[in-house]
Amino acid sequence: MQLLHALCQIPAPSGNEANLTEYLLHYIHRSQASWRTQPTVLAGGEFQDCIILVFGQPRTAVFAHLDSIGFTVRYGRELVRIGGPAAESGYRLVGHDSQGVIECTLVVDDETGALSYNYHRNIDRGTELTFFCDFRETATTVQSCYLDNRLGVWNALRLCETLEHGIVAFSCWEEHGGGSVAYLARYIYEKYGVRQALISDITWVTEGVQPGQGVVISLRDSLIPRRSYVERIRRMAEAAGVPHQLEVEGSGGSDAKELQHGAQPWDWCFIGAPEDNVHTPHEIVDKRDIASMLALYQVLMQEL
Amino acid sequence: MQLLHALCQIPAPSGNEANLTEYLLHYIHRSQASWRTQPTVLAGGEFQDCIILVFGQPRTAVFAHLDSIGFTVRYGRELVRIGGPAAESGYRLVGHDSQGVIECTLVVDDETGALSYNYHRNIDRGTELTFFCDFRETATTVQSCYLDNRLGVWNALRLCETLEHGIVAFSCWEEHGGGSVAYLARYIYEKYGVRQALISDITWVTEGVQPGQGVVISLRDSLIPRRSYVERIRRMAEAAGVPHQLEVEGSGGSDAKELQHGAQPWDWCFIGAPEDNVHTPHEIVDKRDIASMLALYQVLMQEL
Amino acid sequence: MQLLHALCQIPAPSGNEANLTEYLLHYIHRSQASWRTQPTVLAGGEFQDCIILVFGQPRTAVFAHLDSIGFTVRYGRELVRIGGPAAESGYRLVGHDSQGVIECTLVVDDETGALSYNYHRNIDRGTELTFFCDFRETATTVQSCYLDNRLGVWNALRLCETLEHGIVAFSCWEEHGGGSVAYLARYIYEKYGVRQALISDITWVTEGVQPGQGVVISLRDSLIPRRSYVERIRRMAEAAGVPHQLEVEGSGGSDAKELQHGAQPWDWCFIGAPEDNVHTPHEIVDKRDIASMLALYQVLMQEL
Repeated sequence: MQLLHALCQIPAPSGNEANLTEYLLHYIHRSQASWRTQPTVLAGGEFQDCIILVFGQPRTAVFAHLDSIGFTVRYGRELVRIGGPAAESGYRLVGHDSQGVIECTLVVDDETGALSYNYHRNIDRGTELTFFCDFRETATTVQSCYLDNRLGVWNALRLCETLEHGIVAFSCWEEHGGGSVAYLARYIYEKYGVRQALISDITWVTEGVQPGQGVVISLRDSLIPRRSYVERIRRMAEAAGVPHQLEVEGSGGSDAKELQHGAQPWDWCFIGAPEDNVHTPHEIVDKRDIASMLALYQVLMQEL
Repeated sequence: MQLLHALCQIPAPSGNEANLTEYLLHYIHRSQASWRTQPTVLAGGEFQDCIILVFGQPRTAVFAHLDSIGFTVRYGRELVRIGGPAAESGYRLVGHDSQGVIECTLVVDDETGALSYNYHRNIDRGTELTFFCDFRETATTVQSCYLDNRLGVWNALRLCETLEHGIVAFSCWEEHGGGSVAYLARYIYEKYGVRQALISDITWVTEGVQPGQGVVISLRDSLIPRRSYVERIRRMAEAAGVPHQLEVEGSGGSDAKELQHGAQPWDWCFIGAPEDNVHTPHEIVDKRDIASMLALYQVLMQEL
Repeated sequence: MQLLHALCQIPAPSGNEANLTEYLLHYIHRSQASWRTQPTVLAGGEFQDCIILVFGQPRTAVFAHLDSIGFTVRYGRELVRIGGPAAESGYRLVGHDSQGVIECTLVVDDETGALSYNYHRNIDRGTELTFFCDFRETATTVQSCYLDNRLGVWNALRLCETLEHGIVAFSCWEEHGGGSVAYLARYIYEKYGVRQALISDITWVTEGVQPGQGVVISLRDSLIPRRSYVERIRRMAEAAGVPHQLEVEGSGGSDAKELQHGAQPWDWCFIGAPEDNVHTPHEIVDKRDIASMLALYQVLMQEL
């Protein structure tokens, strides 16, 4: 879990993922010699802060978003949200501006819900603040801010170790309206003819999805994937005996939104471990669900 | 109206249109010998569950969506909506799961509005339920669930009988956020240079649009089509003497959303019969409006 | 300011920009001989009512939307909004229908907020009404309806006078859901490889953005641009000594929405003068902010 810990600590709010991108590029450079297959690495320039790894003769692409939720300093001490972070007075926030490193706390107005920060000085307008990372590991769980989606990124990186044929794409802006998957999807489809996708992301513990019961295969959220594709995946998961749960939601979204709405005919399915304390500094995931997530991705990337 | 009756009975909720697609492909195969022009049929593979028919040298494309509204079984006896169905306790719903065919009824909680079903057993998580089809025909009307948009599909199929030049495209997901017109539109534009569209769909009876007064030409809904294109269509409808009504709405949408927002410069216009009891099992349309809908499409596909 | 006055007077509600497009094409034809560089002019046909001007070897594109907010006549005396106009009883509205030129007044129902018009006769269904233009100029300000975005158009046209390398694109539908930037962006990227954008549009006076303090560089609105691009722009503005202000908002949008969500990897930044009385007939802008807006565009189009 050292890799996951490292990933959780690097600030990468939507629109400013560059530091995490750089970390990943170094990690890939350092690690790939030990991977079963050497990928082509596409990054920089027209890929902005995204990364595409192409292994062998790909049939399916995995998408994992790099960015996280956070806050932007507005005027005076006001904050505006990046994505949809939970907000509770006292949450520790970190960042840096022209005067240096910042560690401050979040303040939520009880009556209006307005957000501000508590700090000994004013922070530069436009500065991004993210949750302080307090990484906690037990025998059965990991807990931290930003498991959504550093755990999805971790899953994708671990998958790379044994992947023979497939694409792994690291995207940006997922938490705040999207903006990179549209062009990644077009590039991948036009260049490699790939139009099967798996969304490596984290979902919610609910009355129907419990921690420790296995990775979640989502039958729908605010969008509905093509039934025939999801059914194929369910059958493969059952045949392989990987513990899994089925999710049915009426809200929520992922990088799949851009696949669904783009001008290429993607089939997609959201597959990820469930977490509790969603979008707080205390996101928690059961290690069994992490194990079954990786196991299922390994199966599916061979069989799809 | 036998064809329409058959179309209304086939379940095809957004994301699971495959059965209706198969029915249409058989119908087209069986019928096309009697059509004036033999179309090229594009289906399967990269077209997912959509169908494109290309007649002669096309200048204009007709879009008709295959999918319907419905419900997905969530956890326990909960239901979540597919698209925006009306909900009233007692509506008959049909579907099937691992234990067989289902016929149950909808239950709406009076206080919370929460949706569930009444049935002698639990239904598998993720099962889709659609309205039971009670098709009713009189001398002047047809009534059924899913006239929106099986009537638009029927109109497109009847149009095929005499069409010389044009494209007819059957789309998916329209009732639930869209997802196929973006790629159909790109394909059609890039392959055939076509960028004029007609949306063969069903609209609402309102204080300004009355049953029996003719097919509706929509001047706007939540989106606004290019004025010059809509004006050309109005002039053609007037010159041809086809009974029609003008609609002006501030809400509502159609497959045109994806044309408007896509990366090709489509002109589009929504043209369809008005129905009452929208999105209930009792949608009703006046036969005169069906006749003028087909007549207007026949004129426009020649003249545009 | 004669050019600005002329631009403000031409009705061009979203979807019906053709008159303004024609005016611009005449203006460009008449003026370009005196411009430093002769552009290629792309208009008509697949560009609908948009215009693209290509100067030299472009690296950056400026987008300025032509369209404005307004109202559509619905049934009886009802009106529905085009975009998000402010509404106050007594606002003067103009238009024309089959019976001739119209000058009427807006009526807002105090209780329901419903919109209608006061006029001596009924107006044709579907007629577009726009604000009457009362153009007011002082030594320090300009005031009129539709400074948003005729001032952005004016800025782009004045920029053309000295531009050596770059693209200027005039777009449609911005006020009502967009619909042209997606294809303009695709065309520009595919044909010229350009993926840097500046949005020439007008923003809001707020507690953090004051009239007379310089052109606004927006760090974010409802969307978040790529941080590294915006930082480059800030550094160039500072180095050039052009007066400017930084904006941080959680809502609002622009043509950048389509760049962000399209299938090309655009970097974008909204840069424009702030106005007060937004979306009323009395939009007002400080002349110093107009001057610094043009000055900053001149710098950026050379240096980016």
